[in-house]
Amino acid sequence: MSDQSFHPPLRTLMGPGPSDVPPRVLEALGRPTIGHLDPAFVDLMDEIKGLLQYAYQTESALTMPISAPGSAGMEACFVNLVEPGDKVIVCQNGVFGGRMKENVERCGGEAVMVMDDWGKPVDPGKVDDALKAHPDASILAFVHAETSTGARSDAKTLAELARKHDCLSIVDAVTSLAGSELRVDDWGIDAIYSGTQKCLSCVPGISPVSFGERAQQRIANRSQRVQSWFLDMNLIMAYWGGSAKRAYHHTAPVNAMYALHESLLMLKEEGLENAWARHQHNHLALRAGLEAMGLNFIVDEASRLPQLNAVTIPAGADDAAVRTRLLQEHHLEIGAGLGDLAGKVWRIGLMGYASRVENITLCLGALDAVLSDMGADIKPGVALPAAEKVLAGA
Amino acid sequence: MSDQSFHPPLRTLMGPGPSDVPPRVLEALGRPTIGHLDPAFVDLMDEIKGLLQYAYQTESALTMPISAPGSAGMEACFVNLVEPGDKVIVCQNGVFGGRMKENVERCGGEAVMVMDDWGKPVDPGKVDDALKAHPDASILAFVHAETSTGARSDAKTLAELARKHDCLSIVDAVTSLAGSELRVDDWGIDAIYSGTQKCLSCVPGISPVSFGERAQQRIANRSQRVQSWFLDMNLIMAYWGGSAKRAYHHTAPVNAMYALHESLLMLKEEGLENAWARHQHNHLALRAGLEAMGLNFIVDEASRLPQLNAVTIPAGADDAAVRTRLLQEHHLEIGAGLGDLAGKVWRIGLMGYASRVENITLCLGALDAVLSDMGADIKPGVALPAAEKVLAGA
Repeated sequence: MSDQSFHPPLRTLMGPGPSDVPPRVLEALGRPTIGHLDPAFVDLMDEIKGLLQYAYQTESALTMPISAPGSAGMEACFVNLVEPGDKVIVCQNGVFGGRMKENVERCGGEAVMVMDDWGKPVDPGKVDDALKAHPDASILAFVHAETSTGARSDAKTLAELARKHDCLSIVDAVTSLAGSELRVDDWGIDAIYSGTQKCLSCVPGISPVSFGERAQQRIANRSQRVQSWFLDMNLIMAYWGGSAKRAYHHTAPVNAMYALHESLLMLKEEGLENAWARHQHNHLALRAGLEAMGLNFIVDEASRLPQLNAVTIPAGADDAAVRTRLLQEHHLEIGAGLGDLAGKVWRIGLMGYASRVENITLCLGALDAVLSDMGADIKPGVALPAAEKVLAGA
Repeated sequence: MSDQSFHPPLRTLMGPGPSDVPPRVLEALGRPTIGHLDPAFVDLMDEIKGLLQYAYQTESALTMPISAPGSAGMEACFVNLVEPGDKVIVCQNGVFGGRMKENVERCGGEAVMVMDDWGKPVDPGKVDDALKAHPDASILAFVHAETSTGARSDAKTLAELARKHDCLSIVDAVTSLAGSELRVDDWGIDAIYSGTQKCLSCVPGISPVSFGERAQQRIANRSQRVQSWFLDMNLIMAYWGGSAKRAYHHTAPVNAMYALHESLLMLKEEGLENAWARHQHNHLALRAGLEAMGLNFIVDEASRLPQLNAVTIPAGADDAAVRTRLLQEHHLEIGAGLGDLAGKVWRIGLMGYASRVENITLCLGALDAVLSDMGADIKPGVALPAAEKVLAGA
């Protein structure tokens, strides 16, 4: 057990999250703590709610950060909306659909799985079939942006299918929020959760959620209490709600809220559409470099997430050794494959503040250097010029 | 919705938590984010576990921070240890025993309540009676330090009673950890949780927990899955556990862990017994001042928590108006009464870094000034000299 303060190594974070946190957000994070019932903090909570409504493109008043990571945000959606015996159609095309199934079952619900291959988007045709085959289903749950593969599913179409069949939709937007087009109200999404550590470029640990009117009604009309006290939206609403008097529920992570506010402010300053466009533009540059080098994307272009680039590991490259060298020599973190893709792919994030030109240059340069040195089967020396062409708008 | 960065007002935090966070901890909090699977972060996790073992005085390997506030730490204890149909003896002498009851019931358990008046410690005689009357009970749950009243219960005796009756003990140490004597292994406590924002003087948002061997066995031998995926210790262990390979569970709140590490390091530098003694010494000084002024403690001396001083509001003082003036004029936060004590008491915290001489002086000086100005029924001008006598060791 050391008796020294911890000084983290400086990293460039291009894995699946956490992503690089900008100095502005870190500075906000470290400001002096105030009480969670201080009038100044209550004002801050209102501002955060408004900024989250902007980020999600929703007018729902039940839009707020859960005081815990994205997986608690996921659980908040399921424990509030699923009651024992409920049937839920769960789409799985990667790791996180599997976690949704776990959540449904732990709530006493029945999960009907719609399976798609890892790397493919959720197939709306299969979902329609499942909804027709199970007219008693009450919820459709799917992942908008699969962090394990980099595939984007068509959230608009899937949410429409849910409505057509009188189901609520629960949407995982952990990796999509602020990185890809997402319009909660226009698309008719009923419940959605995300994380702070991806395209919002905030520190990890908080999960913004939003519940639309139909979801709120479902919660209000539950026949049983929510099984989690900590995640019971009826109680959380009394603290985060719009009334003048805030009821104490739990002690909010005050400093993390400073950071979230600052990161949301940066998003608003840039403009949501501009942020989406930046992610796409930088993705095209990175893609040009990776493909020139000979690395292949595992997701088809039409459903590829700009903020998460999953590419196959070339022959002659030792997965772990490459990532270790990138980390130790270049202080660059990229992500390993998860589950079935472990050892087969790398996941390169261009999320939020990490989606910037110098990161593309560092990543392509470092990969080129390490893979060439290792004698891997790549085309050396061509990645950076290829990316530069895209960046220059050629 | 503002478009300005949030700059918190500077406060002195002498409520029931969060308490003042020292600059060292805020500085650690704001250091650059690294990945939650970075080897440097994994080393940090090991150090935090070791430091938490020291703080709790336990050798249990299942000692770690839950990535959410204290109420999630409470829930982690209950969802992992209570199965549907289990009978749990729950002691209530304030707000938080009531929350324990909620937790038991939401896990499908049956809560047998042992009630004591607010402000009194839990009565071991009543607990013994309840354990005898319910030989089928499997758990005894109680609050060591009631944050709503400032009463300390005899955790050692209560944990012994639990063992005698073959029950596990679940102990709420949110306000006691690092402020009052607490020896998890010596006292035979089976499961315990706390918060970072009280006597650890860290930012709010994290809940250190520890499960002893008997509790671990109970978790391993469950007949049903834990109802919460996020709080399932079987899964959390695989991430925080001692094995070389850490299994991804959720993205840890990396920066909050920097801060927790720093605050635990400060505790170790001071020494746990020294920290307990400092809390007691400063409490005696504050007490001398408050009593000289004419304010009365609601808890008997024998069970009074040094870190949370609940005193009656004097005649002629408007509760809310006093707290508002303290906050606006003196930038001092003290706590209101909760539940049945709302409007009747103030809760003055001397927790962790907030337990220092200048805070005592500020608090007594500001109270004296505001209450005198308001014409409240106090003895003016005597509080500070009375406190000074104790501080000077007279």
